[in-house]
Amino acid sequence: MTSNFKAVGFLGFDVFGTVVDWRTSVARVAEPFLKRHGLEIDPLAFADRWRSLYQPSMEPIRAGRRPFVTLDVLNRESLDTVLSELHADISRIPAKQRDELNRAWEQLSPWPDAVEGLARLKRRFAIGPLSNGHIAGMMNLARHAGLPWDMIGGAELSQTYKPQAQTYLRTIAAAGLPPERTALVAAHNEDLRAARAVGMRTVFIRRPYEHGPGQMKDIHAEEAWDVVADSLIEAAQALGC
Amino acid sequence: MTSNFKAVGFLGFDVFGTVVDWRTSVARVAEPFLKRHGLEIDPLAFADRWRSLYQPSMEPIRAGRRPFVTLDVLNRESLDTVLSELHADISRIPAKQRDELNRAWEQLSPWPDAVEGLARLKRRFAIGPLSNGHIAGMMNLARHAGLPWDMIGGAELSQTYKPQAQTYLRTIAAAGLPPERTALVAAHNEDLRAARAVGMRTVFIRRPYEHGPGQMKDIHAEEAWDVVADSLIEAAQALGC
Repeated sequence: MTSNFKAVGFLGFDVFGTVVDWRTSVARVAEPFLKRHGLEIDPLAFADRWRSLYQPSMEPIRAGRRPFVTLDVLNRESLDTVLSELHADISRIPAKQRDELNRAWEQLSPWPDAVEGLARLKRRFAIGPLSNGHIAGMMNLARHAGLPWDMIGGAELSQTYKPQAQTYLRTIAAAGLPPERTALVAAHNEDLRAARAVGMRTVFIRRPYEHGPGQMKDIHAEEAWDVVADSLIEAAQALGC
Repeated sequence: MTSNFKAVGFLGFDVFGTVVDWRTSVARVAEPFLKRHGLEIDPLAFADRWRSLYQPSMEPIRAGRRPFVTLDVLNRESLDTVLSELHADISRIPAKQRDELNRAWEQLSPWPDAVEGLARLKRRFAIGPLSNGHIAGMMNLARHAGLPWDMIGGAELSQTYKPQAQTYLRTIAAAGLPPERTALVAAHNEDLRAARAVGMRTVFIRRPYEHGPGQMKDIHAEEAWDVVADSLIEAAQALGC
């Protein structure tokens, strides 16, 4: 096993993209909604546009210009923005239907390796989301997708969003370990850079199709992360699980 | 199924006494420590004395006279108090050994019905501790005892201790549901009274031996709780799981 993981007791996980495939899942859930309301857009393109507002929506909170609200609130706002961009007449789409579509983020499918990989990692390490998702969302997603978390960390604990250092530090504290006895598992180089900056170990999972076949970002490890793997099962093997 | 549970989606659990048998477990873990240091006290009496400081230790935090610290910190302080009362020469017991003994609270055995009962309840409800224990302690205890929680709520989220209303309300919010769609499962009438006061449903589990054969308190349901059961398996049956 990678020698600097000997004392590690907790693995925090990025979830959207690393553990679950948000893009095809959101498209699948959105398709009947788009049809019903006559919105002529490819469901995958719709998922991409919705997701494109994800990072910008958190920015005012990271910068302290807006009090913390959970990710479901931001996603719901972004949904209305996307629908407006598509020239949908929002006043004719009941809020209840938009609320229901917003739950797509709790109905995402795990990548094919995720459930087995987590089960194996869980034998040796405590595991939990270190995600920008909120606790209820992560809990409902775990029940939907069969993710066997030991606890739920992340943005709601810290009341701010990754990659703010506080988000990693608050989850590390909740896990009851010093940073060097924890690791972040993520498919995003920026996330891992922020985790390493606070002293965590790092596991990069290559997810070259998170954003579909044309993905340009996060195809490769951009730094010498402690572990680099093509799946959570491969990561478990590399960590001796 | 009890009709006012039809819309319930989350069960919060008191843990110490309701799910796990702290008394015989702490005694078991403490016994070699007490022997090694020549402390002549029955391990069960030692567990009782340590636990007797549990409620008083939280009181300054509930009252706002002390900033929040997690339960492991309070338990560790209480341990030194008990050792002093037993006229132990604390200066001769390495802090590391006392720290280790403090971990007894993460090595508690589940009541015989608990693991099966939780597994059955989990089929229908999301489940999680709504305990005064801290997140790491609850996580480590769950891994030790095989408790299949979906999330970890409780005191650390609210930064104060039950029965302060805020502790219940913060976990309810984290579960993403209104109070009437949640329930507290507990072996303590006072806990259930506080939960009902904020609008939760209530499940009383009789644990007449939590404090040993001479237990006087919480032998019976003192109010008309929604469900009253002798075990978590019986509670699961009553709730149609």
